[in-house]
Amino acid sequence: MQGIRKKVQVGVIGGNFGSEEVLKQAEIVGREIAKRGAVLVCGGMGGVMKAACRGAKSEGGITIGIIPTGNKNDANKYVDYVIATDMGMARNAIIINSVSGVIAVGGEYGTLSEIGFALQKRIPVVSLSSWTVTSDIIKADNADNAVSVLFVKIGE
Amino acid sequence: MQGIRKKVQVGVIGGNFGSEEVLKQAEIVGREIAKRGAVLVCGGMGGVMKAACRGAKSEGGITIGIIPTGNKNDANKYVDYVIATDMGMARNAIIINSVSGVIAVGGEYGTLSEIGFALQKRIPVVSLSSWTVTSDIIKADNADNAVSVLFVKIGE
Amino acid sequence: MQGIRKKVQVGVIGGNFGSEEVLKQAEIVGREIAKRGAVLVCGGMGGVMKAACRGAKSEGGITIGIIPTGNKNDANKYVDYVIATDMGMARNAIIINSVSGVIAVGGEYGTLSEIGFALQKRIPVVSLSSWTVTSDIIKADNADNAVSVLFVKIGE
Amino acid sequence: MQGIRKKVQVGVIGGNFGSEEVLKQAEIVGREIAKRGAVLVCGGMGGVMKAACRGAKSEGGITIGIIPTGNKNDANKYVDYVIATDMGMARNAIIINSVSGVIAVGGEYGTLSEIGFALQKRIPVVSLSSWTVTSDIIKADNADNAVSVLFVKIGE
Repeated sequence: MQGIRKKVQVGVIGGNFGSEEVLKQAEIVGREIAKRGAVLVCGGMGGVMKAACRGAKSEGGITIGIIPTGNKNDANKYVDYVIATDMGMARNAIIINSVSGVIAVGGEYGTLSEIGFALQKRIPVVSLSSWTVTSDIIKADNADNAVSVLFVKIGE
Repeated sequence: MQGIRKKVQVGVIGGNFGSEEVLKQAEIVGREIAKRGAVLVCGGMGGVMKAACRGAKSEGGITIGIIPTGNKNDANKYVDYVIATDMGMARNAIIINSVSGVIAVGGEYGTLSEIGFALQKRIPVVSLSSWTVTSDIIKADNADNAVSVLFVKIGE
Repeated sequence: MQGIRKKVQVGVIGGNFGSEEVLKQAEIVGREIAKRGAVLVCGGMGGVMKAACRGAKSEGGITIGIIPTGNKNDANKYVDYVIATDMGMARNAIIINSVSGVIAVGGEYGTLSEIGFALQKRIPVVSLSSWTVTSDIIKADNADNAVSVLFVKIGE
Repeated sequence: MQGIRKKVQVGVIGGNFGSEEVLKQAEIVGREIAKRGAVLVCGGMGGVMKAACRGAKSEGGITIGIIPTGNKNDANKYVDYVIATDMGMARNAIIINSVSGVIAVGGEYGTLSEIGFALQKRIPVVSLSSWTVTSDIIKADNADNAVSVLFVKIGE
């Protein structure tokens, strides 16, 4: 039996809360990732994470939620596969280690920690209404553009 | 849009090496888990983990590998979705937190640590040619039996 | 300025609860570790961990508590330095990685996971009224003996 | 026997490399923390971490290194107590969870992740020649000032 061709895993990072505009952007980002056949990896909770998963599922995509608690039921209802770390903030590092690139949508300080990890690991970081604290972060104007530029950067 | 019905996640734990007999058992365990429509979660590396994933994929099942390194490419070729923890042995706790029950196949001291975590978290542990250090561990005679009894215990 | 000569770090593992006899053993173990000038590393919570720390402090020893929560105040009052992991059971791996050998005193399934990690990492494991599931674990008859044999094994 | 009065634990964060000026600042920061009787917690490796530990030890202070590898010997020679996490970047979260406030000295993207965690956890963050990406970060002009303002903020 042959091995499988693994799908590209892409991260969407952002907070448990977000303005209506930010949540709408997250949903489009999730949808566009699914359209490209990639797997959406996120923190699995509410807000931006939930909106992105909902978007991905609306296109039949696959969603993985790497959650901070040890209870699988804490994941949002659009997560297919739940990784229950029980590691609080440290789970942010696992998200980054598991993806080929990330799109930050809005987000607060937790998102900033994930951006720091991603930059340290030298994977592409696209910012959509999020932190732009260094020129190593790629700034996107809108959700479609954010996904397009990320896939160019990761060579898919 | 409705939420999705999450599939049951079941763990297969065991070492990077194993006798031919143990690897055969692991492959059957993986196959039987896939037949029941459950998701196979494991450590994603070689030996028992690889054999179990190969078994699951032979039935079109889904496999998740929660690996100890930070390099997605270290997962075996039968893993669908890779969680690259970069946490060494501590990733064993994440495997246990992410499943409803586990089957230990052969295995050495790393497997013992996972059994300890699973018993602490009070999820069912089935032993197939593995540790049976307490009566809280369910002893299985063969691979089919191991999967059957696990699914009874987790109520699926 | 010269570097410092690091002290030997020794682990005491055991549960949050314990019989009067087990707690008494843990206290003696802590005391004897301190007498030898070693640093006591443990999980920092109650039961065996607290008794061992109390024993160490009664001899002016140093105690480090690597706790499962993210709140430094959860450590017992005999811990000098608190490492607040917020990683639940996974902190057990950090304890093992940080010591040259461990003494298990009583203990339940969490202790079993730590023993598994220690055996995997090939550091000496001494059992005092605890798990003896393999001949790689050194069985001690009493608390004084447990500490003596551990220090012989780690070459101090 | 009475419990001990735990010392305040303060973090110094920064990279494995730094300019001569940054390393000098780190050393003064470490020294001033030790003078105030606080415990210095850091990542335990080279560069800023080593300079800060050297400064603390020059005043007889206590230093704790929470290192990314699983090998205690990887800590710099001015670390008193080594916590070997074997968790790579995720150990940054443990540093932040274990301190009452942090001083960032220089630093690159790893430091940014730690600042994100600290801001998320709402502990004081002082920046000395480091990131100032939000007004929640307190900017210090020099090393003495950085330590003074941190201790005011944490109420010591």
